[in-house]
This record gives sequence, C-alpha cells and structure tokens, in this order.
Amino acid sequence: MRIDIITCLPKLLEGPFSDSILKRAQEKGLAQIVVHDLRKYSTNKHHKIDDYAFGGGAGMVLQIEPVANAIEDLKSQRTYDEVIYMSPDGERFNQNIANELSLKGNLIILCGHYKGVDERIRTHFITRELSIGDYVISGGELAAAVVSDAVVRLLPGVLNDETSALTDSFQDGLLAPPVYTRPADYKGLKVPDILLSGHEKNIEKWRFEKAVEKTKERRPDLLK
Amino acid sequence: MRIDIITCLPKLLEGPFSDSILKRAQEKGLAQIVVHDLRKYSTNKHHKIDDYAFGGGAGMVLQIEPVANAIEDLKSQRTYDEVIYMSPDGERFNQNIANELSLKGNLIILCGHYKGVDERIRTHFITRELSIGDYVISGGELAAAVVSDAVVRLLPGVLNDETSALTDSFQDGLLAPPVYTRPADYKGLKVPDILLSGHEKNIEKWRFEKAVEKTKERRPDLLK
Repeated sequence: MRIDIITCLPKLLEGPFSDSILKRAQEKGLAQIVVHDLRKYSTNKHHKIDDYAFGGGAGMVLQIEPVANAIEDLKSQRTYDEVIYMSPDGERFNQNIANELSLKGNLIILCGHYKGVDERIRTHFITRELSIGDYVISGGELAAAVVSDAVVRLLPGVLNDETSALTDSFQDGLLAPPVYTRPADYKGLKVPDILLSGHEKNIEKWRFEKAVEKTKERRPDLLK
Repeated sequence: MRIDIITCLPKLLEGPFSDSILKRAQEKGLAQIVVHDLRKYSTNKHHKIDDYAFGGGAGMVLQIEPVANAIEDLKSQRTYDEVIYMSPDGERFNQNIANELSLKGNLIILCGHYKGVDERIRTHFITRELSIGDYVISGGELAAAVVSDAVVRLLPGVLNDETSALTDSFQDGLLAPPVYTRPADYKGLKVPDILLSGHEKNIEKWRFEKAVEKTKERRPDLLK
C-alpha cells in the first residue's frame, strides 16, 4: 500500500512517521508513505500556495493551481483508488472506513490548512472527504497521520502479533475490556483475582462481560 | 496554559509541536507544552514500562508504577485541572470540550500505547478519558497532539486573526461554507459570480445559505 500525503507543512509529519508502527511498516516494505511539500508545486516565484478568500473574510485559502498540479503529477505516475481530503465537514472516519481503506492500493491524502482549500479542488479532484471528528484543528496534517496510522496498522504483518488488532475496541462492536499487568498489588491497589486464577475459560467470560458492561455504560449506541 | 504529555514515544510528538500554530503559541508564551518520556519514570534498570496482560492475551500493557510516578511527580510541582487519558473508549472529544479545556490552566495528558494502560491508573489517577473518534490508532500520541492543537488554537492571541477561529466549522453549529481564492477562472473552472460582486451583504447571505445547505446535506444531526 502506498499513501501520498500533500501538505503545506511537511515538517509536522516528520514525527508521526519516524517511530512506532508506521516506521516499522515502511521498513518491512508493507507500506510506503510519501509526504509532498505543496510549495514545490507552486508556479509562483515566491512559492506562494494560498491567498485571501474571494468575497472577503478572515483566513487564507489554499489555491487551486498548486494542489491541482500536485494531484495531477501523482496521478500521471500511478493509479490511485481515492483522492482524500481531510476536512472537519467530511464523512466521519471510523473503524469500518479504516478497514475498507486498508484493502486499497494507492491513496492520496490532501491536508487542508488555514480556512481550507479552494472549493473547485473539492468538486473536481477529490473523491472522498474524511473528518477525524467534530472539532477543528489547525490543519489536516494530524488528521492525515491519524488516518494513515489507523489504516496501516491493519495491514497483515504490520503488528507483531496478528491477533492484537482483532481484540481492539470497535473491531467486534464492543469496547475493549480492562487490562492489568504486574505488579498484582501496587500500594494496596489490586488486580482482580480472576485474572490471576489461570482459568482461561472464566477469564474469557469475565472479559466479555466487562466489555459488554463498559459498552452499555459508555457507548450504548454501538450495541444497537 | 500548560499541557504536560506523558508518552512512551516522545519522538512521535516532535513534529506536531515543531511547526504551525502550536509552535507559535509557545513562542508567544501563550501555551507551554512539555512532553515527558515515560521511560524516565521507570524504576526498572532496563527502563521497562510495559508487561504482558494478566490473564493472557496478545499485546503489552503499560505498567501502573512508571505512570503513577510520572503523574505524582508532575502533581507535586503544580496543580492540574484534569489528568486526561486518551483512549478509544473515552468520551468523544468535540469542539465543546475543546472550548471548555481552553479555559483551564494546567492539564496532564497520558498517551495510551499497545493494549492500553493498567486499569488501576484509569480508576485512581485519571480524571477524564477522551477519544478523538471511533477508530483505533497505534497510540495516544497523535490523539494528544490533536487535542492540544484544538485547545491551544482557541487561546486568545494564538491565531493571527481573532475572528478566524469563530468562523470555523462547529463554532456556530454549522459546517463552514465553501471558500474560493485566485484565480477566478482556472482552466474554465470558475468562482461563483456573487463572491466577485463586492456586495458584502449578499455575500454574507450566500455564505450563510451555503453553510445551512451543506450542514443539512452532510450533518443534519447538528441542526437538531
């Protein structure tokens, strides 16, 4: 799988891809994540990529030309399954969409910034708009990193233990049950006896009950 | 405002805070974001911070001791309004919570990783659990960066133009209207005439109608 991220702040994405699972996935050759600096696609001699909004108002808007150039340049090199735009008014990203995207080959992710991108990009170049949640952040970079992380970790072989992702929250429609590790007694705070019992069947039952209990309490909407 | 982030992968957070609004906010002295390496709080000679889950199963669990040490060390230095844990089963973070947190003084954000943190931390040390959305990512680092960004950009003086954040999606319960910038004609793709008319009142009206239209179409739940 290959993900091309187009951004006006490539530095922001250095950290998230330099460590952890995303780095490992790339080292194993399971995923390739390429960050593109939008300024390189500016035809302006000052590498300008944004301008004031037509009609007035606060905030800058990413211009159509550099973004169109970037997308067209990538598309001339390979076929993409989706050209995604990260925006708070997009479709809400969730685990189902992560599963779906993990089956794709090549993705472009365009990061919005400032007041957003010229609407003509959204209408004519973007195939899918995604939002990571109902809040505003200063750009689409963190959002693109979140989507890349959620998708790439699902690729077979990325996580060390194949069963690890399957027991995550949402994968079975339930929140994950509580987990505990050593020491069994920390200043009087103790681990539930059942987890120390070694009785596998009872432990499974307890975990399932706790997962249902937590989901009922916190996210009854998931049980509908 | 001060945000202390406790993580086992501090490198992941270098990028998000090294550029953009979060950097500017810190340079202006409006916010202080301090990233703490959980390994420093390990009492184990190998700086171990995780261990297998009691009761078996895939994935590692962050241990109570280093996390408790980190939180207690910070709390001995100043008072915190909230000790937040980022987890997919937490309360869903949204713009209202961002607004609320932007009025606080000091926050601790603990990043989960692997299978999560020992449940005793959640029960006895955490005051609030937040989720950035219904999906699983490989750790709480990106989530902590998202929350920090969403909160810090709301602090007065962080954005260049005070009115800029107020016209964002969600702040008035509506999605933002489309934006356009130069050129007015790009290979035949044109900007709506009204935005070039210079008629401020009509432009305001058009923008409001477009915002309502988009919200009705994409997020009718916001209009209830």
